[in-house]
Order: sequence, then structure tokens, then C-alpha cells
Amino acid sequence: MSENKKAVEEITSMDENFAKWYTDIVKKAELMDYSGVKGCMVIEPYGYAIWENMVSALDKKFKELGHQNVSMPMLIPESLLQKEKDHVEGFAPEVAWVTHGGTEKLQERLCIRPTSEALFCEHYAKTIHSWRDLPKLYNQWCSVVRWEKTTRPFLRSTEFQWQEGHTIHETPEEAKHETMQMLSVYYDFFKDYLAIPTIKGKKTESEKFAGAESTYTVEALMHDGKALQSATSHYFGNHFAKAFGIEFQNRDNKPQNPYQTSWGCTTRMIGAVIMVHGDDRGLVLPPKIAPTQVIIIPIAVKKEGILKKADEIKERLTKICRIKIDNSDKSPGWKFSEHEMRGVPLRLEIGPKDIEKNQCVIVRRDSLEKIIVNLDDVETVIPELLEKVHAAMYEKALARRSEMTHEAHDFEEFKNISENKVGFIKSMWCGDEKCEKTSKEQTAFTSRCIKDDENKIDDYCAICGKPAKHLVYWAKAY
Amino acid sequence: MSENKKAVEEITSMDENFAKWYTDIVKKAELMDYSGVKGCMVIEPYGYAIWENMVSALDKKFKELGHQNVSMPMLIPESLLQKEKDHVEGFAPEVAWVTHGGTEKLQERLCIRPTSEALFCEHYAKTIHSWRDLPKLYNQWCSVVRWEKTTRPFLRSTEFQWQEGHTIHETPEEAKHETMQMLSVYYDFFKDYLAIPTIKGKKTESEKFAGAESTYTVEALMHDGKALQSATSHYFGNHFAKAFGIEFQNRDNKPQNPYQTSWGCTTRMIGAVIMVHGDDRGLVLPPKIAPTQVIIIPIAVKKEGILKKADEIKERLTKICRIKIDNSDKSPGWKFSEHEMRGVPLRLEIGPKDIEKNQCVIVRRDSLEKIIVNLDDVETVIPELLEKVHAAMYEKALARRSEMTHEAHDFEEFKNISENKVGFIKSMWCGDEKCEKTSKEQTAFTSRCIKDDENKIDDYCAICGKPAKHLVYWAKAY
Repeated sequence: MSENKKAVEEITSMDENFAKWYTDIVKKAELMDYSGVKGCMVIEPYGYAIWENMVSALDKKFKELGHQNVSMPMLIPESLLQKEKDHVEGFAPEVAWVTHGGTEKLQERLCIRPTSEALFCEHYAKTIHSWRDLPKLYNQWCSVVRWEKTTRPFLRSTEFQWQEGHTIHETPEEAKHETMQMLSVYYDFFKDYLAIPTIKGKKTESEKFAGAESTYTVEALMHDGKALQSATSHYFGNHFAKAFGIEFQNRDNKPQNPYQTSWGCTTRMIGAVIMVHGDDRGLVLPPKIAPTQVIIIPIAVKKEGILKKADEIKERLTKICRIKIDNSDKSPGWKFSEHEMRGVPLRLEIGPKDIEKNQCVIVRRDSLEKIIVNLDDVETVIPELLEKVHAAMYEKALARRSEMTHEAHDFEEFKNISENKVGFIKSMWCGDEKCEKTSKEQTAFTSRCIKDDENKIDDYCAICGKPAKHLVYWAKAY
Repeated sequence: MSENKKAVEEITSMDENFAKWYTDIVKKAELMDYSGVKGCMVIEPYGYAIWENMVSALDKKFKELGHQNVSMPMLIPESLLQKEKDHVEGFAPEVAWVTHGGTEKLQERLCIRPTSEALFCEHYAKTIHSWRDLPKLYNQWCSVVRWEKTTRPFLRSTEFQWQEGHTIHETPEEAKHETMQMLSVYYDFFKDYLAIPTIKGKKTESEKFAGAESTYTVEALMHDGKALQSATSHYFGNHFAKAFGIEFQNRDNKPQNPYQTSWGCTTRMIGAVIMVHGDDRGLVLPPKIAPTQVIIIPIAVKKEGILKKADEIKERLTKICRIKIDNSDKSPGWKFSEHEMRGVPLRLEIGPKDIEKNQCVIVRRDSLEKIIVNLDDVETVIPELLEKVHAAMYEKALARRSEMTHEAHDFEEFKNISENKVGFIKSMWCGDEKCEKTSKEQTAFTSRCIKDDENKIDDYCAICGKPAKHLVYWAKAY
């Protein structure tokens, strides 16, 4: 097993240097490569296959709920971006500007979309005339560009892949319902596909999306105790509609502005999967999105009948799960370590002695538990195991989050936790932005979300002591 | 049927004005909308659903052949684009340049990818070291930007959606095999999914891709007799590998440059479908890519039991085909005309008299033929009909192309055909670019492709009379 050890040693231990551990994994598991433009990355086949599995599950869900995919242009004229004041203030400082087309200077600068509210609004203004045209439930899968100063693979990149839903409705109620419905879609997706528990709540005014009336978020806790804003859903009211002149004849034949939402999630979810589930051996992938769910490793490949048996098992399982055989000329130990590093949920070992006993050895990536399975039973055992792995990964992440969630009842306690512990601080808040500023400056903890569906734990703000309005989760954030 | 007539009248007749007929269809069938940036379009849900069906079929085929999807950045530094001389000469005049990120001027201009050879080569140069790393069979689905002067929806737009395969191999033979294999994939896709016959051949030197050693193409003939270059596959030799410094240790442990290909198809295929199959009533969609394959139109909706019966039929067919019911409050005549305009392959009418007789009426979009079908038989009849529609559409297009293909044996005949007929001219060619220039200037016919797998029809070039090297298809082209 010396080779095994050698390969494992290439990954920095997460306790030693979490940031380096993360970078080691994304590089060594061949999820991505850097490009010549700072913050722009190549997503390599293994990373992209994870993304494709995420896209496929989400896209199906969106369509079941009546959404339709469209494709908007990637370029926004400067004058169009400027139509909504808060929106342009939020995004203009971080966009890439196109100034020349071929050899000619453009009359008006165009920015590469940092998000597409302006484009959807322009289209809606042209195509929506009557209440009969509503709602429109549109979504697009594309990449956007934000000129970030500090970038990290998947977590914060200049260009990133995402999905942006943009819907438009007759009434505020409908639009609000859509906002909350899509937030729940994300919450469920994180739980059911990524095995990640998230805190579902509302952003404070200072943390909301530029131009939104309210922003909702799902926040996940990473292994190092920092929070990751993992997906957001916004309610716009009719601000954008007014700014972009979107108007329809309502059922009383009166002109009216419609109500809008937008909601999105990104390749950042790959970062979340790495940092919630990974360990010192590398990636641990939730089965639902793992490109390969089961890797068969034949032992003593050259012995007669081994590869044939491996092929036979693969054939039997190929309709049940995503399964591959590693029949390369590397040693079994090397292969164990390599597929552990790549996070494959189940390893199936089959050697001459196993064949004699009509069995195989299955090793779970999450717990490293070894299970002897009768070869007659693989069709029933493997799907059950994949389910068990998913459930165990979720429970483990949930338990860690519980351990890492600390209540603070006054600012001394708040500061004390921030200095000695990592994770979420849960406290009451008066609603004043000053207290958010105080917390940020003195503890580096920022408000992650308001969680008013939980029982309040005090009557007073933990930061200033004034009467409290909201229960808030705070954390250091990515 | 007056409403029916009215809706139909909104589309310009194709004989009256083909260009206007085309634009009417893309707008009225709600395939796309114009945006504020010239040549950039919004692909609306119906257009995008057609594209998704194309993507899904092609992506499956690419993966079956061992290709993996990746995502490259959209931005290319100017210095990187300049590494291959012919490539930059071909593309630099038509790229969009990013000069500012946020408020800062960039040290080096970045272009929005017009195609991604440079990016794939940069990545390959970093990641390929040994023959064991080869081949890499990569593909990406994305949009690219080319600053076109004259644009038309789907056919030639500033930004367009496409797929670009980029593969890299140990030997020229392998790379050449890949080039031809992918050309055949496109040829089969056009035939089997789009019901479009194409001419599969090689581009002349003057028409090949900037930087390629050879370019292969599938060319389709539109209803107006003009040709559309519909997909291309390029063999690069090792030019790019040398320019970008891609080198691997070969099996003899010597450093060597690998061999590359690229191949692509675009949303232009939607334009091809419109212009090959459409008629004066609107779109005619090939069943395999139609978002809705069967539209159920209940007659006398308010009569008891009609909607229930329609739902029942839909339920029975929903696993067999993409089927919808139009139960809006419009008149049946209006609905007939609307779904004809949108090109739905089959219309299923069900009214009180049909229910009495346990039957429905099915109308084929391609031939407008009416077929009475016993309700017990719909599960078998509908899939058969969809196959028949596909086959008939292909045969019709093939027959039209045959009619529109004319042999020219000398330049008088060539010019005569170019003045009095439309379609392909098939003639022998000496291989001299001068003759291509003569043809282009005097007839506006350009060489579409060399077709040396067909029997030669003369010994001499139809343009200059010198000894002929190749059989060539010529046409006016989009």
C-alpha cells in the first residue's frame, strides 16, 4: 500500500491548510485548470460531468414547475444597464466592457452580462401587453462575468456558469409565491442531491441583491466553519417593471406594472460539495451527482476470468447505476487511492478468491466501511448502499453544523465565540445596519440570513442590547 | 375558416419575398426576438426547445463516441489568439474586444471567443505530456461572438449558440479518422433528425477554416435554391500544436507534436429547418426535434365529455410522444392555423361525432392529409405516422434538391444556369483559385464543396477548360 500512501500524501491535510487542501483537490481530482485570464477557469471533464448532473436534475425540476428555457444575448448596452438605479450601482463597478467590434470603436460600450435582469426586462417590455401574456416563467443556463479582485476556483471566479430564472406575474402574491417556491427547490436540491443541509432565510437590507425588494438565500456551512451563500431567490416587486417600462392591460383593462422575481445557482455548488464532504483523502461525492457511482477494481487482473467477471458485473449493473471498470495497468493500491481522491461513492473489488466464494468486496467512500456482498445480490445491494451513503453524508454534515452553531446572547459572548470558535453564531438582532457593521468590523462575522421561522432566543439585540426584531445567523463567509 | 385564413395571411408568401417569409416565420412562430445589440438575438422558448432537442440528440451521440464535455473561458488574451498566424488573420477582424474590467483599463485586450482553438491549445499544452495522455476527445456547448456586418436570425448572428469539438491525437491517421467520423455524425443527424439531405464534401483552399489543413462540410439546399453550409469538421495536422507548443513523449520516448481536429454546428440548423421544410402556412418541423409532436384540438370544447376524452388520449400517448392539448378559448379554426404555423407535425382533432364513432381525425402538417383513426389504435398509429412524416419530409427535400441540381460542362452553360436557374451547379474544376474567383464575380456562385467520391462528368474544368482535378458543387450561399 505504499503507492496508496504516496498518492494520498500529495493532498495537503485540511487541518494544516484548508485553502491549500481545497486547491489541491480541485487540481488533483482534475475538476478544473487555470486559464491565461485571471479568475477564468477551464472546467475539465470530471468537474463538468458533476455540473451536468446538477444541471440535469435542476432543469427537470424547473420544467416540471412550468418554466421554459430561453437564451438571452451576452452583451448589454450601457444605457440599458443604467435603467434601474440600484442595479447599475451594484453591478457597473464589476463588469467587463466591450469597446471595439473588429477594428471599429463602438458608439456605445457594451458590458458582458454580470446577470441578465436588464435583458429580460427589455424583452418583457416588448412582448407583454395583456394579463393573458402573464405569467412568463423563463430560465436560462449560461455563463456570466464579474470582474472580481480575489478569485478562487468554483467559489468566486470572474466568469462562472449558472442558471438564472426570471419570472413575471400579474400580482405581488404570485411573484412572492414563486420566489419562495424556488428557494425551496434549491433547499430540497441541496438536501436530496448534494446531501448538504442549508439554512433557508432572508437577507438583510445590506446583503440583498442590487435592485431587489427582498432576497432569500440558502446558506451552507463548510468544513472550516465558514458559510457559503449557495443559491438565492429574489422578489423584485415592480421596481424593474417601472424602470424598464413593462406594462400590461389588467383584467379591468387598466395599464399596470407586473411583478418580477429572479433566482439562481452556480458552479459554486461544486465548491460547496468539496468543502462540506471532502476529507484528507480527497473528494467525497454525493452519489446522485457523482459522474461514476461505482468503480470496479479487478484484483490480479492477469488471472484468467477476472476481467470477464468484472465485465459481467458491470453489464448487470449498468442500467441501475453509473458504473465503470478501472482495468488500467496501475496497481490495485494505486487505483484505490486514485478513486478515493476522486470521491467515487462505492468501490467494488473483485479478485480470484472472491470469485471462488461468489462474492465481491464493496468499500464505501464516505465511511471506508468494507462490505462483503454475495454476487447474486449486487442488483439489490448497490442501490441500497448508494441511498445509505447519501443519507449518512447528509446526517454527518447536519451533525457537524449543529456542533458548529453557537448561540450568543450578548456582544461579549458574540465576540468570544468569534475568537474561539468557528461556524454559525445564532443571535437576536435589532434590525439596525449599525450592528451589522459593528459585528463585521469587530468579529468579521456578517449576517448570513434572517430566520424568523425559528423561535426567538432573547428579547434584545445581542450586539447593541436594544429590542430585537429578528433572529439572525451570522458567520464568516466565502 | 375565415380566422384560419386571416392568421395565415400574416405570413408573406415565400414566392413573393423569401427573405420576408423567413423573417415572418421566425417572429410569428415566436422562435426569436431582436435585442438592443445589432445581430444579438433572444431565442424564445419555442425556438430554444427546438435547439434543446437538437443538443440532446447530438450530445448523446458525441458521448457514445467517447467525447467528454468541458467548459472553456469565454475570454481570450490578444497574445494567445495571435499564436497561430492564419487563425488570427481569419478571426481578428471580426472579434469583440474587452478593454476594461470594472473601472480599470486592462493591460492586455481580451477578445470574446469567436471559436476556442486557442483556449483548447493552451490547455492541451499544459496537460498533455505523454502518449498515455492521448487522445483527448473534448466538446463544449457555448455561445461565440463574431462581429458580422450583415446579420439574419439564426443564419448569421453576432452571437450564436454552438457546439465545438476539439480533439487531439497521437497520429495523423487517428485525427483524420476523427474528422471524417464527425462529418458523418453531422450528415446522419441532418438526415435522421432534421430530415435534411446534405452534400458531404471537402472545402477548397479558399473556403477552408482559418488555420486548418483541410475543412469538410455538409451543405444543404434551401427552398430558394441557395446553399447553407450546415456543419463543418476540420483536420488541423500539427500546425496548432507547433504554434502553441503542445508536445508529448511518444512511444519511442521522443518529443513529438500531436494532431488535432475541431468540428462544430450551430443554431443555424434552426434556419436550415425553416428554409428546407417551411411553406406558406409557416414552419414544418421534423418530428424528431419538434417541441410538440402532436397537438390535440378538442372540437366543441364545451360539450360534455370532450375535454375528458382529450385528456384521456393525452394520458395514453404521453409516454410515446411529446403531446399537448390546446384547450384555450380560441376557435378550432384559429387553433388549426396557429399550430400549422408553428409546424406541429400532427394535429389530432376530437369532437362529439368522433367520440360517437370511437375515432379521431389526424391531420399531417407536411402533406395536410386527413386520416381517420380508431381511438383504440392511437398508440400504434401515432408513432408510425411520425415516422412517415419524417420519411416523407426527407424524400420531398431530396427530390427538390435533385430537381435543383444542374450539370454544367462549360462556362457558357455555367453562366446560363446561374442566370436562369437556382440550386447547385455540378461541374469539373481544375483546382485553380482563379476559376473560383471568375465564377464568384461573374455568377455569384461559390464553390460549396469538392465531391471526389462522385463520378467525374468531364475531363476539363467547366470554367477555364484546362484539365480537371475535382468534381465541385457550386451555389449561391447564405
